[in-house]
Amino acid sequence: MNLKFKTTALAMTLICGICHAQMQSENIREDFKPSTLNQAGQEFPQVNSQGYARFRIKAPQSDSIKVSLGLGGQGGTKLTKGTDGFFTGTTSGPMDEGFHYYHLTIDGGVFNDPGALNYFGSTRWESGIEIPAKDQDFYALKDVPHGYVQQILFSSKSTKSSRRAYVYTPPGYGKGNKRYPVLYLQHGWGEDETAWSNQGHANLIMDNLIAEGKTKQFIIVMTYGMTNEIKWGGMKDFKIENFQTVLTEELIPYIDSNFLTVADRNSRAMAGLSMGGMETHSITLNKPELFGSYALLSGGTFNPSELKDKPKPALIFISCGGKERPENVKNAVKALKEAGYNAFSYVSENTGHEFQTWRRSLRELAPLLFK
Amino acid sequence: MNLKFKTTALAMTLICGICHAQMQSENIREDFKPSTLNQAGQEFPQVNSQGYARFRIKAPQSDSIKVSLGLGGQGGTKLTKGTDGFFTGTTSGPMDEGFHYYHLTIDGGVFNDPGALNYFGSTRWESGIEIPAKDQDFYALKDVPHGYVQQILFSSKSTKSSRRAYVYTPPGYGKGNKRYPVLYLQHGWGEDETAWSNQGHANLIMDNLIAEGKTKQFIIVMTYGMTNEIKWGGMKDFKIENFQTVLTEELIPYIDSNFLTVADRNSRAMAGLSMGGMETHSITLNKPELFGSYALLSGGTFNPSELKDKPKPALIFISCGGKERPENVKNAVKALKEAGYNAFSYVSENTGHEFQTWRRSLRELAPLLFK
Repeated sequence: MNLKFKTTALAMTLICGICHAQMQSENIREDFKPSTLNQAGQEFPQVNSQGYARFRIKAPQSDSIKVSLGLGGQGGTKLTKGTDGFFTGTTSGPMDEGFHYYHLTIDGGVFNDPGALNYFGSTRWESGIEIPAKDQDFYALKDVPHGYVQQILFSSKSTKSSRRAYVYTPPGYGKGNKRYPVLYLQHGWGEDETAWSNQGHANLIMDNLIAEGKTKQFIIVMTYGMTNEIKWGGMKDFKIENFQTVLTEELIPYIDSNFLTVADRNSRAMAGLSMGGMETHSITLNKPELFGSYALLSGGTFNPSELKDKPKPALIFISCGGKERPENVKNAVKALKEAGYNAFSYVSENTGHEFQTWRRSLRELAPLLFK
Repeated sequence: MNLKFKTTALAMTLICGICHAQMQSENIREDFKPSTLNQAGQEFPQVNSQGYARFRIKAPQSDSIKVSLGLGGQGGTKLTKGTDGFFTGTTSGPMDEGFHYYHLTIDGGVFNDPGALNYFGSTRWESGIEIPAKDQDFYALKDVPHGYVQQILFSSKSTKSSRRAYVYTPPGYGKGNKRYPVLYLQHGWGEDETAWSNQGHANLIMDNLIAEGKTKQFIIVMTYGMTNEIKWGGMKDFKIENFQTVLTEELIPYIDSNFLTVADRNSRAMAGLSMGGMETHSITLNKPELFGSYALLSGGTFNPSELKDKPKPALIFISCGGKERPENVKNAVKALKEAGYNAFSYVSENTGHEFQTWRRSLRELAPLLFK
């Protein structure tokens, strides 16, 4: 991995913190409700119809609590202690729609909000909050046929371990002998193989698209995209070759021999968000004979010169949030189209380097795959 | 649900807190290592070869931190603040082998240990710590063929919701048309459908038993054993009929039509720990035509008079920890045997009302099932 890769990954991580909120002069509507990602029965954190988030934490003898979410550049939201022993506070502006990671700093130590569920990001389990999005219906849990998310453990000789992956199989999988194409879908830096199901709702997005007849049915495989388990998540020693070996020489053969797949290039795609997009970029260029479709979600671009003299992909999909650098995505896709590639761009309106961008990207990508 | 049920469930919960540690006069060996349930890369909490646990928490401006684990009856382990801003402390005695839930009280507020992974217990995600057991090999992750743990979402008309279950399928499941018996396996009060895989390692226990040829292969289905989602986990309004409807009229038909099961009484068992054992007791007596084998793990007993005039079970298994009331288990099984039932007891040595008892119970139960 070169320096440019590392710097870009770092920049992408930093962007997360900056896009959260924008100062607004509107009045705060008092229609706060518990976040849908709260632990069962917990009233806080709450969100209102404008996207403000409100926190309430019990810590009677503490001196200070700060929430990492809030106005970018000002270090989050400082809570105020009440006479009842609870600290409360509201973000100084509305947050972007969708999912956000956060944590508390209590008297100088970092802890999670006991009211919220935890999600793996920043190489640790962080608190999560959901700002209801206008289009949240596409990842809602509905009474439609549901696929399964299976935890598998596959033997990896190259890392001398049993590694974990999650495999989404569409509704009805396994009832007959029908075989399915496969999308290998990677998380971003600091996340792991749980991200696309937990934060991303990839399974519900697919269930809903399938119920509406909007996509072909396919399997999705999600695994951990690093091999540096000892210094967990450190980018310093990251080499694409190590993960590439796990993915292409260990996981793909395991999936093809244990699941009902169509085991050929045209029926195999790779996609990833952020660092996972960069991994997709590197691995599809290194192993173009394995993958027929490539997708980068907030994870860089392809250009025609990289693809020249290699087996031509059936599809290239490049996306990002409107608060990232959409012009880069659009320009890249324009150049690819001019060079004769079947390329698509997607820009998620009013979102940044966060999961709402990637949920929407999967919704847009799925119907284009395996045609 | 009657008052006796409620009181017993409460007593069982209280026992958890009392059995953790016993005062010992031995010297503390300085061979502490990170708990195997720590978050990736975290050095604390640690455990030593005697079973002592040591904690270290950064909170430079806090006044007090207490860990809920430690000497029973004295409110856990109080940590001491160092000049480096870290609070540290060691339990006053060795803990029982196996898994323990815990949390921190920081300046009067309840939070999780940022060093540890979280497990759902006490109706919330709590920190977890593992005291290495002498027999830990039976639930270790080994390089053997692994079954899958599948998250499924099934439609429940009686609760007007999509409900979640986890389904363990043994290695090789689905590669042919082989059909399997099914064990319905319930968690305890305050836990949920994640407990048997996460805390219990049910999948690894089965993988290892199967690899050693010690058990028949079967499917395990684990779902949430309550229907009171609004007041989550409250026992006040609990009625067995509601969960019984979900299990017997919704989940079992779903499993039998979507998985490769042998859909008859002799190939269907029910087991549960603590509250799940009481549910097993009630539901197998109410619906003896559905289940051929019954197992109660630290969850009460059967007596011959309850079973009279009902279809005879092929197997009754009753277990508990040696620090619970093993004489009750042994006496119940003695009476059942005398009445002509195929009954087995198991007592887990030196453990209480905790998961090590139930991991071992599953190891003992599995080889007896579906013969």
